[in-house]
Amino acid sequence: MPPEISVIAIDGIPEVRPGDDLAALLLEAASAQGTAIANGDLLVIAQKVVSKAEGRIVDLATVEPSPLAVEIASEHGRDPRHTEVVLRESKRIVRMDRGVIIAETRHGFRCANAGVDASNVGGVEGRDVVALLPLDPDASARAVMKRARAVLGVEIGVIISDTFGRPWREGAVNVAIGAAGINPLLDYRGQEDAYGRPLRTTTIAVADELASAAELVMGKAAQRPAALIRGARYDAGPSGIGPLIRPPERDLFR
Amino acid sequence: MPPEISVIAIDGIPEVRPGDDLAALLLEAASAQGTAIANGDLLVIAQKVVSKAEGRIVDLATVEPSPLAVEIASEHGRDPRHTEVVLRESKRIVRMDRGVIIAETRHGFRCANAGVDASNVGGVEGRDVVALLPLDPDASARAVMKRARAVLGVEIGVIISDTFGRPWREGAVNVAIGAAGINPLLDYRGQEDAYGRPLRTTTIAVADELASAAELVMGKAAQRPAALIRGARYDAGPSGIGPLIRPPERDLFR
Repeated sequence: MPPEISVIAIDGIPEVRPGDDLAALLLEAASAQGTAIANGDLLVIAQKVVSKAEGRIVDLATVEPSPLAVEIASEHGRDPRHTEVVLRESKRIVRMDRGVIIAETRHGFRCANAGVDASNVGGVEGRDVVALLPLDPDASARAVMKRARAVLGVEIGVIISDTFGRPWREGAVNVAIGAAGINPLLDYRGQEDAYGRPLRTTTIAVADELASAAELVMGKAAQRPAALIRGARYDAGPSGIGPLIRPPERDLFR
Repeated sequence: MPPEISVIAIDGIPEVRPGDDLAALLLEAASAQGTAIANGDLLVIAQKVVSKAEGRIVDLATVEPSPLAVEIASEHGRDPRHTEVVLRESKRIVRMDRGVIIAETRHGFRCANAGVDASNVGGVEGRDVVALLPLDPDASARAVMKRARAVLGVEIGVIISDTFGRPWREGAVNVAIGAAGINPLLDYRGQEDAYGRPLRTTTIAVADELASAAELVMGKAAQRPAALIRGARYDAGPSGIGPLIRPPERDLFR
């Protein structure tokens, strides 16, 4: 049989609020829809529900923009309170142009608005609420992995995903921002191609490819913030998202 | 039932040589392994077999490097003949550092070595042969799409994929370099999130996500240069890879 993978949306997850037990909600929703989680499966979870469960949301009414945020916002036609939150979440501004701020987050991700986003946050009627990235997305992933082990007795990989734009290519894709139980890279170094020649494209960002595959069933507007992937080959060894983040000395676009 | 997609490797494709009828080889291999191609399926094909079938391979013994190629190669520890082919395939050099040439191809793709690659090419014993990107990957995809229609009576989407590195993130991922029967972007503009707020990350590069999903079953060393994806939501409307290529005026990293 040729290799085959399945990507199954986890449906019916209720509105997530700060303090909610996200792992329990996910495992219950999978069970309720008849999706049995098995050893070697991968669970991909959208960042937004993780941030909401962890209380990483900010009511813009509580934000006092700094003079810098006010200036950037007025130059670029942005909300100064949103800009203030972006600056607080940033370690470094990578580019700023035409209303777009590409920032490096404290985790090392380079993305629009340092991952600060207003869509699918909800919140109190009439308030402008934004979600921040989780403080430690690897820890968020690890918590779900451990809960699956404790409740179901299964060893799975867990990926926290977010939707990032890319230089040079239009359209955003889902990438991994947190991982547990899976090495985010799949390393072909030392292997040979079908003709005995050493493989040159040696390292595949398998966690990013899995996050992208999961997006195909999660959608954006639907309340389907997670997907289960079955049958994918991955290295369950070292975990954490660190290996996916390019260090400054290897960054040609710093 | 929650949305679910399947990604099935197409196995058993024989060694592809210049002039081979790739569409026929792919459809036969799918049939031989019992994978019935149906309306709405997507076929993702690795660039390398497309290039080989189309004769887009170069024996480096036939290449006379220009003085510029010799200079770049000596500065960066590269093969001057390989560098010459990269320059010929390039419209513009984006970055050059530590042996890496990131070039813009004539199609508009920004990638390492303008897509010129030596792995999985094979060729004559003892010769150094490299593969170039197809001249018109959209036409390559269209030919397979039309053949599927003619032979099987099915309407499918076809994506030609290649493995590209990315700024800021370690590890390469598969992206789409050619498309037929599928709009490479999925546009959420005008839609609202689950709370009635307009969606901000409005456009998903669904063809790139599909290419990444396919990579998960194709692998690198295995002779499995294609995969069938079933159940994915996509817009069968306009085709061609153009919408994925960011125009210069929107390129913050030019």
